[in-house]
Amino acid sequence: MQRPRRLIAFLTDFGWRDPYVGIVKGVIDRLSRGKVRVIDITHDVPSFSIVAGAYVLYTSYKYFPPGTVFLVVVDPGVGTERRAVAIRTERYFFVGPDNGVLYPAAAEDGILEARVVSNEAVFLKPVSRSFHGRDIFAPAATLVAMGVDIAALGPRLEPDELVKLSLREECRAERVRARVVYIDHFGNVALGLREECVANLCAKGHVEVRAGEKLFSAKCLPVFSLAEKGELVFYVNSLGFPELAVNLGNASSLLRVGIGDEVELARPSS
Amino acid sequence: MQRPRRLIAFLTDFGWRDPYVGIVKGVIDRLSRGKVRVIDITHDVPSFSIVAGAYVLYTSYKYFPPGTVFLVVVDPGVGTERRAVAIRTERYFFVGPDNGVLYPAAAEDGILEARVVSNEAVFLKPVSRSFHGRDIFAPAATLVAMGVDIAALGPRLEPDELVKLSLREECRAERVRARVVYIDHFGNVALGLREECVANLCAKGHVEVRAGEKLFSAKCLPVFSLAEKGELVFYVNSLGFPELAVNLGNASSLLRVGIGDEVELARPSS
Amino acid sequence: MQRPRRLIAFLTDFGWRDPYVGIVKGVIDRLSRGKVRVIDITHDVPSFSIVAGAYVLYTSYKYFPPGTVFLVVVDPGVGTERRAVAIRTERYFFVGPDNGVLYPAAAEDGILEARVVSNEAVFLKPVSRSFHGRDIFAPAATLVAMGVDIAALGPRLEPDELVKLSLREECRAERVRARVVYIDHFGNVALGLREECVANLCAKGHVEVRAGEKLFSAKCLPVFSLAEKGELVFYVNSLGFPELAVNLGNASSLLRVGIGDEVELARPSS
Repeated sequence: MQRPRRLIAFLTDFGWRDPYVGIVKGVIDRLSRGKVRVIDITHDVPSFSIVAGAYVLYTSYKYFPPGTVFLVVVDPGVGTERRAVAIRTERYFFVGPDNGVLYPAAAEDGILEARVVSNEAVFLKPVSRSFHGRDIFAPAATLVAMGVDIAALGPRLEPDELVKLSLREECRAERVRARVVYIDHFGNVALGLREECVANLCAKGHVEVRAGEKLFSAKCLPVFSLAEKGELVFYVNSLGFPELAVNLGNASSLLRVGIGDEVELARPSS
Repeated sequence: MQRPRRLIAFLTDFGWRDPYVGIVKGVIDRLSRGKVRVIDITHDVPSFSIVAGAYVLYTSYKYFPPGTVFLVVVDPGVGTERRAVAIRTERYFFVGPDNGVLYPAAAEDGILEARVVSNEAVFLKPVSRSFHGRDIFAPAATLVAMGVDIAALGPRLEPDELVKLSLREECRAERVRARVVYIDHFGNVALGLREECVANLCAKGHVEVRAGEKLFSAKCLPVFSLAEKGELVFYVNSLGFPELAVNLGNASSLLRVGIGDEVELARPSS
Repeated sequence: MQRPRRLIAFLTDFGWRDPYVGIVKGVIDRLSRGKVRVIDITHDVPSFSIVAGAYVLYTSYKYFPPGTVFLVVVDPGVGTERRAVAIRTERYFFVGPDNGVLYPAAAEDGILEARVVSNEAVFLKPVSRSFHGRDIFAPAATLVAMGVDIAALGPRLEPDELVKLSLREECRAERVRARVVYIDHFGNVALGLREECVANLCAKGHVEVRAGEKLFSAKCLPVFSLAEKGELVFYVNSLGFPELAVNLGNASSLLRVGIGDEVELARPSS
């Protein structure tokens, strides 16, 4: 069994500006007596965007050492009936809300055990109505990082009962609908498709893109910096996802799409 | 006596963009030979806002382990005659400018000893005119975190001589003026009142809010996510302060208030 | 010979928003088994601005402990033929692209040895086309921080072969052209000149500034907070560079200059 590593990788939509991230780190440090290190993945997941949080976690987790505990708080349902969960996989541990944000990464690594985080002895009290990152998830993740068995956190959950989310649709046809799963600070538009879709759709060297009412043509290139300035490009990004980008420009603005929107891609007929 | 813990919690208005935060961490690491850890609270306190810095420190400090040294640089008076101070409290240490930013947290924890930071042997030389975070506060905080008695930093100051600042006004009357002490990245407006004010003013289930010339009605709810979209809500936030928020909106924009502004709250007569 | 210190100071233009910084830290932690610490200098160097990255590194490096490994990824040429390099200086180590970003800091400290980073055994595979920070620079910097001789990274390069960049022009004449090398979050405009230029040009107490077609007069003061509100000031900033600032205003907006632009400074004739 993978032993935890006294390392928490921390991912939220709290933003860097307010004190929330610092407070959670204070809690981790206090509960672990300084024994657990924290590495920030980012805290700028777009507010409440479960799909963007799932994308960031899925594209990041495998670069962390085995035994890392991923503490993920992208939690639009805080204060409602959504479950808090802890998941043990082949190499890692995941703690966060059961809203799908953990699912693609945990499922890819291989889920071995899932627990509802409901043992109130673990929580920081009084538990606030809206800051479960501080009061529930941070204490739970710290205990896991210190070596406590996730069985201590609450009752078992069958992996099938977890809320699922898919970031990787197949695209066998010549025309596919794809969800925008992330937009980075350059405005590059990552799509929820398998990596092979680029080769599949790019047989003619370019691809048709429909976003809303508008139709675009994107050039297929191995990397977007090879394009002309302002050109729309379709390629596999460095995190392994099909992506639309404009060299020295902003594809998200050009296409007028946001995270969660859909675009239609088609292999040109001529 | 509380022993320091080789942990600095670091709070400034330097911003994350420029190299100032990194330089201060370099100084701490160099002077402590890597023995002192640093946790960022945030570096996005609005520029020169002493009240916002005091709010962030006051709402954060108690989550850190006893022995933490709080290094706080929100310092509009840098280069003037304002004092640099180090304060020892029941459980913590605080280092920063004597402009009130440290006061609410230090006073709540119980001030045991205060010192002017004036011993030039401690400073990084030459001391710049505007970067005392690097040249004065960081070396002083590092020494404290390494176990040096704050008496070594300079002469004693009576706690009464410290610059005071209050974040928590009472509200016994049915009508109170409240200062905006913080606005978070959602635009939620935290008010410098005691927690009980919400119950006191909310006897009728809503509260009248006057901001500038305009009058609003805010619904009293236990948490803002229970409101309708766009509704103005009054509640106790997760950091323990009365707050005005708009669900899925921006209360600061609606009310047209900034940090330091005043609003008037009243229990409705009918 | 300076021994490395298991400390990486990390500087990029990745931004804080996307997961790239967190992924690189995961790689460092994994390869070093948690033995190498990372201090962020900043990740908000303006995208692809080599001169701004060089300025941030040059003004920061000397505050870090001897033995620090500086991992710098400001790399507009990623995927082209630009070299990856590792440099050993009198007190430090530098790893990054050979585009000039490392040069001013490394040259000031005294270059002892330079190596091309080309040993593929070091790289994370498959090496992506655009994320060399993760796949090439992070593994190389981690090895150096763990004590591996930079000779293991690839063939020797003569210091003369490195791409050079100058941040410090002299100004013996009464009129000089100066490059904008950095603009901080206040809009203060740092100039690529030697510190002495301020005294030289300020003999009359103010200096003429030509930016584009417009002419301004800047007051010479020891620190910008001594100026009237809105006044343009010329002084040596806390990082040792001549700078133009507007007290409680934004000099970059007033002068309409960006990083890389030139301004002309002249000692007034009357």
